[in-house]
Order: sequence, then C-alpha cells, then structure tokens
Amino acid sequence: MFDIISLKNGLENVEGFYFGGVSAGFKKDGKNDFGFIRSDEPFLVSKVFTTNKFRAAPLEHALRYGKNFSSNFILLNSKNANAMTGEAGISDIDEILSNIPLNLINPLMSSTGVIGERLKKDKLIKAISKFNFKSKDSNAVAQAIMTTDNFKKELAFRVELKNGKSFNIAAICKGAGMIQPCMATMLCYILTDAKIPQSDMDELLNGAIKQSFNAISVDGDTSTNDTVMLFSSGKKDYDKQAFKAALNMITLNLALMIVKDGEGSKKVVSYEINGAKSDYEAQIVAKKLSNSLLVKTALHGEDPNWGRIASTIGASGVECDPKTLSIYYDDVLVYDKDHTELDEVREQKAHKVMKKDSFKIKCDLGVGKGKFIAYGCDLGHTYVDINSSYRS
Amino acid sequence: MFDIISLKNGLENVEGFYFGGVSAGFKKDGKNDFGFIRSDEPFLVSKVFTTNKFRAAPLEHALRYGKNFSSNFILLNSKNANAMTGEAGISDIDEILSNIPLNLINPLMSSTGVIGERLKKDKLIKAISKFNFKSKDSNAVAQAIMTTDNFKKELAFRVELKNGKSFNIAAICKGAGMIQPCMATMLCYILTDAKIPQSDMDELLNGAIKQSFNAISVDGDTSTNDTVMLFSSGKKDYDKQAFKAALNMITLNLALMIVKDGEGSKKVVSYEINGAKSDYEAQIVAKKLSNSLLVKTALHGEDPNWGRIASTIGASGVECDPKTLSIYYDDVLVYDKDHTELDEVREQKAHKVMKKDSFKIKCDLGVGKGKFIAYGCDLGHTYVDINSSYRS
Repeated sequence: MFDIISLKNGLENVEGFYFGGVSAGFKKDGKNDFGFIRSDEPFLVSKVFTTNKFRAAPLEHALRYGKNFSSNFILLNSKNANAMTGEAGISDIDEILSNIPLNLINPLMSSTGVIGERLKKDKLIKAISKFNFKSKDSNAVAQAIMTTDNFKKELAFRVELKNGKSFNIAAICKGAGMIQPCMATMLCYILTDAKIPQSDMDELLNGAIKQSFNAISVDGDTSTNDTVMLFSSGKKDYDKQAFKAALNMITLNLALMIVKDGEGSKKVVSYEINGAKSDYEAQIVAKKLSNSLLVKTALHGEDPNWGRIASTIGASGVECDPKTLSIYYDDVLVYDKDHTELDEVREQKAHKVMKKDSFKIKCDLGVGKGKFIAYGCDLGHTYVDINSSYRS
Repeated sequence: MFDIISLKNGLENVEGFYFGGVSAGFKKDGKNDFGFIRSDEPFLVSKVFTTNKFRAAPLEHALRYGKNFSSNFILLNSKNANAMTGEAGISDIDEILSNIPLNLINPLMSSTGVIGERLKKDKLIKAISKFNFKSKDSNAVAQAIMTTDNFKKELAFRVELKNGKSFNIAAICKGAGMIQPCMATMLCYILTDAKIPQSDMDELLNGAIKQSFNAISVDGDTSTNDTVMLFSSGKKDYDKQAFKAALNMITLNLALMIVKDGEGSKKVVSYEINGAKSDYEAQIVAKKLSNSLLVKTALHGEDPNWGRIASTIGASGVECDPKTLSIYYDDVLVYDKDHTELDEVREQKAHKVMKKDSFKIKCDLGVGKGKFIAYGCDLGHTYVDINSSYRS
C-alpha cells in the first residue's frame, strides 16, 4: 500500500537536482528560452526518443553514450530544434556544452523549435553566464522549453510508502501541436529521488509512455525531436508498484495537459474503445478517431454527428460490423443497430454532452474483447492560425 | 495512333444515354438534389466502391447484382448518404426505385450527404414525377450530386481513331471534403459509347483510379459512399490503348478538380517522390505528405518551411537518410546535405513558388528507384468553417 500526494510547484520537490532558465534572446517577448537541469553526483538516465527516422542532432548526440549511462547535466533550448543539421549540428552541441563552467559527465542537450536551422552558438554560449547553477527554479526551466504552449506543464507528487518512508517524482513537459499517437513534438523530463534500478527505469518508462504520450493526438504528426527522459538521483527509498503508479499518473496527467493545450483546442475527448477483436485493433480505432479531421472539426462545432465516428471506424480496416457497433457520448446512446437515427431527445442530450470541456466517446465494436483509450482534442481556427503563420 | 479532343458540355456527348436532375426540396437554395442516368437498352457497368467496411446502403444494394451485370437506370441524390441505415436503408432503395415509371433492369441508386439518417422516401417519390426521362441535361444531373462542391465537375472527350472512327467518353463527379488517397467522399459516373468488353472495363477502371482518385487527398478521411462507375452503351468503335489514355485523362483531370475544390483550399500541390526504395514506399511518402496537417497549413501560409516536409518523410517509416535526401519546390532546391539551411535568396525563390496556385514539391530520397505522384491541397479557415458547422 502507498499514498500518492499531489505537491505544489514542480521539480523543487525532488532531492538532488538543480535547475533554472534564462532568456538567451530568442523569444521576442523576452521569456526564458534556455535552461538546464543538473546534479552534483551523476543521475541515472532512462530515455525514449521519437520514432521519426530523421532524429534531431541532440538525440543522435545522446545516443553516442550508448544504451545505459549516467549524466550530471542537460541543457535545454527552445525556438530551434537543431534538426536536419547533420554532423555540424552535433558538433555545435559539443561546442556549446564545452563552455559550461562545471565538471560535466556525459552532458546532454535537448532542443525544440524550427527544423533546419543551425543553433546560434554565440548567443547561447553568451547566455550561459546568466545561469545560476545552484538555483532550484522549476518555473524558470519549464518556461524555457515552452514553444506554442499556452500554459506551463509541471507536476509533482510525493509517494508515501507503508514503511513510513517516501520518495518524490516531478516533471516538466512541453508540447502543443504536432502531437500524435507515437510520441509527439514534446519534451518531457521526469525527475525522481527514488533509488530505482536502471532496468526498472527503462521498463516502467516505456509502459508509462504507452498509456499516456502514445495515446494522445493533436494533429497526427510525429516530430524529429520528441524526447522523454527519466532521471534518478537515487537519494530516497523505492518501491516498484508505488513508483509505477506514480509514474503512470504523472505521465497521463501531463499527456492530458498537452491535449488540453493542443494548438487552439477547446475540448479534451477520450475515445474509449471496447469490444474490438484485439487490444491492437482497439488502439487502431482509438487513434484513427483522435486523428480524424472530420471528427475533430465536428467536436469543434459541438455537433453530435456520429456518422463521422462510424465512418472513421469503418475506414480503419479493423474487424467491425454495423449490427454489433454501439456509440455513446458519455452515457447518451447515439447509435446501435436499433437506433440508427438520432431522435430529438437523444440529439439534444448528445449536444449537451458535447458542450462540455471534456467528455467521452465510447464505442463498443461488439466483435471481441480488445480495448484501448486514446485522448484527443478538437480542431478550430486557432490551429490554422498558429500553423499557417510564417516562421519569422 | 489516336487523338483525344476536349468537348464542350458533358454527358450529352455520349450516345445512348438520357440524364437529368430536379430539386426534391432538400437543398435549401432550391438547387437540384435528385437526378438520374438511364438508357433504352441495357448498358454494361463497371464499378469501384469504397474500402470503408461500413458501406452505405446503395453500395450493398448494387452488390446484390453480383460482380458483372447490365443495368438501364441509376438514381442519384444528395444531402443524405443512406449510410448506417441497415436493411431498412436497402429496402428504402427498392421502394423508391419501384416508383420509377419505366421498365427497369437491375436499377441502381447512389447517395451522398449526411450519414445515419433514413431517406425521406415520400419526398423523393413525389419528385420522381418532375423528371423528364427523355432529357439529356448533363448540367442538371451534375448539379444534383453536388454537396460542399464550389463548382460543377464535368468533362467530355471525343477520341478519334486512325481508322476514321471515333468514340466518346464523358463524366460527372462530386467530391470536396473527406477525400483521401483510398478513394474519397466522391461519386463519379463515367459514360462511354465505346464498345468496350466487360473485362477491359474492370481492368482499365481500376488502373485509372490508382493514378487519379487514389492519389489525391483533401483531409485523409475515407467515406462510406465512395463510388466510381463506368457505363458503356457499346454504340461506337473501341480501341483499348485509346480508351485507356482517355479514361486516365478524364479521371486524373476530375481528381485534380476535386483537389482544387478541396473544402476551402487555395492551392493544388503535386508531391513527386523519386528515389524511394520501392514504388510502394514512394506512395507512402507522397500520401503522408499530402495528408499532413502541418504541411497543409504551411502551404496555406505560403511558408517554405521544408522542415515539416523532412519531418513527415522521417516519420513515414520508409527507408530514408538525411544525407541522401533532397527537396525542391518546383526547381528551387530547399534542402540537401550540403544545403541544410535556407539562405535568403533560396528562401525568397521558394516563397515565390509557394505563392502560386499550383506547384510541385519534389523529394528525392536517394535510396532506390521507387516513384509516385500524389496530389493535395492546403488547409485553411474555410475547411474548419465547413466542417465544424452543425448539420442542420
């Protein structure tokens, strides 16, 4: 048994780390765009990177350390992804890191922003002198990785074990557009002081991502820079079940914050698929729905046009049958074989559900026992505004 | 050798058919929403239907005639797709068709519009009396199948053979949103008076669709009603090569008209992929690009943000390498391994290309000989307006 307690603030709650952020002058409004996380003693690193074959330079740079390694420093920047920059992009990282006035062990860098531009090394190196390497300012570093995010994404929990001991877990995260069900244009750094073994870190991080960041969609694109990292300082007690629960909770909550902040989105919708032939087929349906432009625009218009849901299921290629399918908006039945048309009462009830900021679309395919839950948002004008504006 | 000559008007040019359209009162502006195509003697039918598993009632109804059959009548309506309506939807078709005051052989029906509502049989049956079954009004029937289309899609060609003989081919088509590279929310009826054998009809129609309707994308969704039909009255001469060329030309031109009319789109872009490991992998890339929201919004903003192109290629799962990749906008190089950053001159040239109504994005993956061309459009506010508005 254990208790998971939500804490105020963010990374400050975890023992053994320092972090901060400053403006290096890239964000026009003068907000932070450059940050770091570090420790005095090396921390264990577990990481999951994008499946995009054009991995950005920071990811290639980190992969040079091999599968398992410890580090004591990561540099973070926004406004430039250092992607599609070839070997030069990797050398740039080494050069910038060589200017950090600390004794670094396997130092890392993470970048997010525009693809296809070299880092402005001089400006970044100059800004290093602004860092206070003894600071513990979670807000400052969380701001530094924000791009089109409308709000900061930062969470912290204390886990109290039955033996009276406890550990802490906290995370910062960025991600707004380009979020798709195979990771996202997202960066996420999870810090813990629990003394977790490397093998558990890798196993539990992969499991946590599957039910959180891999189950969300903003626009179906997968970026070159997607990174989730778990750092452990090993200062406190550890319990596998408790850690798994806390890690799943923190990643799912961050994932939902990303969806809520989906560029211009007003609504968070969970797609609960049951009765598919397999969990895999349920996942295909859930992700197809959360990615469908026609479904997303119908959500935006608060129109209980379940035909678009049905059509998307039919187009997904999975085993399905209109005679066994049922579709609910929260608890309002909008389709089954005996209710192929919305009467006025159900239409009004369904419309009322859709007016909420958050609701469920539940589909039972009625052909097996497979199930999966995915999360998505609506798509409106703001998405078009954000993504059709010129880079400069 | 043969000549293909573009003709004025549409279906009128083909011998052996009658067609027309009227308002049955479903379109609020009083425009035609109900039409027919028929012949005195049976015509051969070749058809390709949606891959969506929830095929609409008209498709299930037609499939009852078996693979190859002749017909002498098809009824067409818009505003209601008669999809997800079960057996009742099929019975509705039989009942409506039984009210046509002609001697029908294997009569067909096609519907497009909202999913999940029963046809208003009484209104349709009443409107049958308005038809003039001796009319040859291509414009009237083309209007009857339009939904969110902004312009009528109608083409006709005469093919002159070297023996001095000739045949005609003409088509009407609808489709605007929900167009994806596995057919589309589209209906297309191609009429010919060439005496084409059934086996050639099926073979050539499938080939023509592959390079036209299956290579376009508006929003990546596949509908329940997609239908392409080829009818032959067999009144005139036939030559396979000439017919193939004319059929490919008419379907590709109609496909490009659909993209041009993509809900709210301003631009038609062709994605020419070369150097992929296989034609199949080239097709994956071409379709991923034409479906990517981030690419489509960048087109809308006329931003030569080639990073989104590269990122989409990397995310597509095909064999690729940043060292062998090159990307051009028409003839302007925007990326290769020696040009990882847009200088001001190339940026301005690329931006100029993107201001055009129509241009090419050419990607050479440099890993093989596979190639494919797909066609897509941009995505802007009008798409959101059209698709987020309430059905009523």
